[in-house]
Amino acid sequence: MTNSSATPIIETDAVIVGAGPVGLFQVFELGLLGMRADVVDALPHVGGQCAELYADKPIYDVPGVPMCSGLELIERLQQQIRPFAPALHLGQEVTALQPLPDGRYQVESTAGTRWLARTVFIAAGVGAFQPKRLRLDGAEALEGGQIHHQLDGLDATGRRVLVLGGEAPAVDAAVQLAETGLAAEVTLVHRKDAFKAPADLLARLQALRDAGRVRVAVGQPVALRLAGDRLQGLDILDADAQTQALAADLLLVRLGLSPRLGAIADWGLALERKLVTVDTARFETSLPGVYAVGDINHYPGKRKLLVSGFHEATLAAFAAAERVFPGQTIHLQYTTTSPKLHERLGVTPPAAD
Amino acid sequence: MTNSSATPIIETDAVIVGAGPVGLFQVFELGLLGMRADVVDALPHVGGQCAELYADKPIYDVPGVPMCSGLELIERLQQQIRPFAPALHLGQEVTALQPLPDGRYQVESTAGTRWLARTVFIAAGVGAFQPKRLRLDGAEALEGGQIHHQLDGLDATGRRVLVLGGEAPAVDAAVQLAETGLAAEVTLVHRKDAFKAPADLLARLQALRDAGRVRVAVGQPVALRLAGDRLQGLDILDADAQTQALAADLLLVRLGLSPRLGAIADWGLALERKLVTVDTARFETSLPGVYAVGDINHYPGKRKLLVSGFHEATLAAFAAAERVFPGQTIHLQYTTTSPKLHERLGVTPPAAD
Ligand SMILES: Cc1cc2nc3c(=O)[nH]c(=O)nc-3n(C[C@H](O)[C@H](O)[C@H](O)COP(=O)(O)OP(=O)(O)OC[C@H]3O[C@@H](n4cnc5c(N)ncnc54)[C@H](O)[C@@H]3O)c2cc1C
Ligand SMILES: Cc1cc2nc3c(=O)[nH]c(=O)nc-3n(C[C@H](O)[C@H](O)[C@H](O)COP(=O)(O)OP(=O)(O)OC[C@H]3O[C@@H](n4cnc5c(N)ncnc54)[C@H](O)[C@@H]3O)c2cc1C
Repeated sequence: MTNSSATPIIETDAVIVGAGPVGLFQVFELGLLGMRADVVDALPHVGGQCAELYADKPIYDVPGVPMCSGLELIERLQQQIRPFAPALHLGQEVTALQPLPDGRYQVESTAGTRWLARTVFIAAGVGAFQPKRLRLDGAEALEGGQIHHQLDGLDATGRRVLVLGGEAPAVDAAVQLAETGLAAEVTLVHRKDAFKAPADLLARLQALRDAGRVRVAVGQPVALRLAGDRLQGLDILDADAQTQALAADLLLVRLGLSPRLGAIADWGLALERKLVTVDTARFETSLPGVYAVGDINHYPGKRKLLVSGFHEATLAAFAAAERVFPGQTIHLQYTTTSPKLHERLGVTPPAAD
Repeated sequence: MTNSSATPIIETDAVIVGAGPVGLFQVFELGLLGMRADVVDALPHVGGQCAELYADKPIYDVPGVPMCSGLELIERLQQQIRPFAPALHLGQEVTALQPLPDGRYQVESTAGTRWLARTVFIAAGVGAFQPKRLRLDGAEALEGGQIHHQLDGLDATGRRVLVLGGEAPAVDAAVQLAETGLAAEVTLVHRKDAFKAPADLLARLQALRDAGRVRVAVGQPVALRLAGDRLQGLDILDADAQTQALAADLLLVRLGLSPRLGAIADWGLALERKLVTVDTARFETSLPGVYAVGDINHYPGKRKLLVSGFHEATLAAFAAAERVFPGQTIHLQYTTTSPKLHERLGVTPPAAD
């Protein structure tokens, strides 16, 4: 996957692995202390669990924010970190972390991006979000060929497409494919004829079904129909235990995302039940200069909550500053009163009265 | 001061010493876990340093709140804790903390209020805010007689009043006294003829000065003029080192507030440089069931920041729940998804789609 020689290596104060809420706030705390960060996420967008798992649902326990949705929280954090303009590298998973003799780390992603980082922050939450795969014989070999997970870049022209899934990502893909009108056939495959999606999207689906432009096939996928290494269709099992054969040229698998710890387990970090062990003064892992913050870390008393991740990111930033600015004492300054922090934030608060 | 027998003792899950931002958020975290709190503050209002020291100044580093003033943060926190309707006991300092044989604590304040508390949270920040006293010979004996700090309850009818101070609390008091029109004379005493206060308040002061209803005397207080134990006036020293004698029946000393650790130092808690030592899993002090959160505590890595106080309050609440509900396992629940937390918060979020 990684093509190391093609892209120039990026030098940075900090690579943040994960653009969830804690990774985003990490940018802020590093920025306040004068450090520049590169943020990487496997997803094509920022926000981690807040964006992926409860975008529209209200949260009540962010201190000072009596109520906001997951997505609103992410928007607020994006606004807050704007002064520090982090380099965002989305849609790529960090796979390799290699200590170098000079104390820095070489970091690599699945997109072939490489960094030379003074410090690394693992803000990987419950792991990199990955599309759930279709677990049928022969499916793996067809990935990227006749089986896809993303609509982006998919050429459906003249093809019979089966879209698998029952929630918004599947409904949205079927609706978009049908509205574009290039595919020969669009069939939404789900175990029951009931879909979870926003009302307006469901209305568009219904209109397309009424017009015969989207079909719905009800049943559980049980086997791929293959001719040699070519996909010809999918067998599904309906509620009456009857098998039905659906013809297909392309499968678009939209069964949701599931998180995977992935390569992080191989970086030589001390782990405890798939979580990265840290101390509570610096939130540093067993590798010096590598910190772990948010849901991915573990220490006595740990609770997987936003409020804790934000605190961890704050203390980890102070610890990192000692490494990035060796020999300097890192003093606490208040955003309210420090002219240096105002300059970094790009604000001119009202003069003291 | 304390009149123990007069008031009935209040039984409560938790006494929170200090209604600063961290004490307020402590109410929230205790409430989420089903515990009821009584909050006590020496000041007549909530908000601690945010309200007292930077009410109008913007803060930028509360996670998810790109900018808000000290006072706005306190308003947001008050709104957030509203579902848990804490009992607020303001204008009284907690002076005594006594462990009882049954594991509870007896707590007492300067107002004679007494509590029987299962747990105690010291959220005392930099200490109890106290009005700065006038450090002149004979002043202490006049406190509460001819020398006061609060306008509330002051009878100025027919008296010559000197208001000491150069900032909003002093200007405000002089303006209010003069506008009420009961005092014989109102004189604002400050070392220079320049006052720090909001523009509208300064305009009201100017109008009263123009009308001869407030006088300004410029100079540094150097001695009280006494006849026996009665105050007759104040000597001030002006910029030219000239002494000026001001006649007075009442002094209203509004030189600002300064924090004082006070009685907390005598409660038998392990301290380190006037801070209360805690562990980082439970934020418990050396007394079991007594926690310390926010600026008052100390542990390796501690930074006196809001974001850290909020985290500490969260973990301390979980620790306290084990004590208040012995034998129960305290599970983490999300405010986003838990019906029990929704009930406690008094909210009905939209049904899952
Ligand atoms: C339904 C639900 C409700 C919740 N409600 C609340 C609540 O009310 N209050 C509360 O405090 N908390 C709540 N939480 C928990 C809260 O969302 C998490 O604590 C928070 O999301 C953790 O943030 P994070 O940044 O550590 O991790 P995440 O949000 O998990 O983000 C981690 C990011 O890292 C990326 N990543 C991982 N590994 C890699 C890699 N190798 N390369 C590139 N990217 C990678 C992932 O793709 C992901 O985007 C809730 C969680 C859920 C699921
Ligand atoms: C000018 C200034 C700017 C700041 N800017 C920032 C910033 O930008 N970001 C940031 O994170 N932090 C900032 N801070 C720090 C922040 O305000 C503190 O971390 C926060 O106020 C601590 O909250 P607390 O509740 O622990 O204590 P406090 O706010 O100090 O409140 C403690 C309360 O306890 C009361 N109390 C104490 N002892 C007793 C007693 N025995 N009985 C009854 N009541 C008692 C006091 O009267 C007080 O009201 C700033 C502080 C100042 C002074």
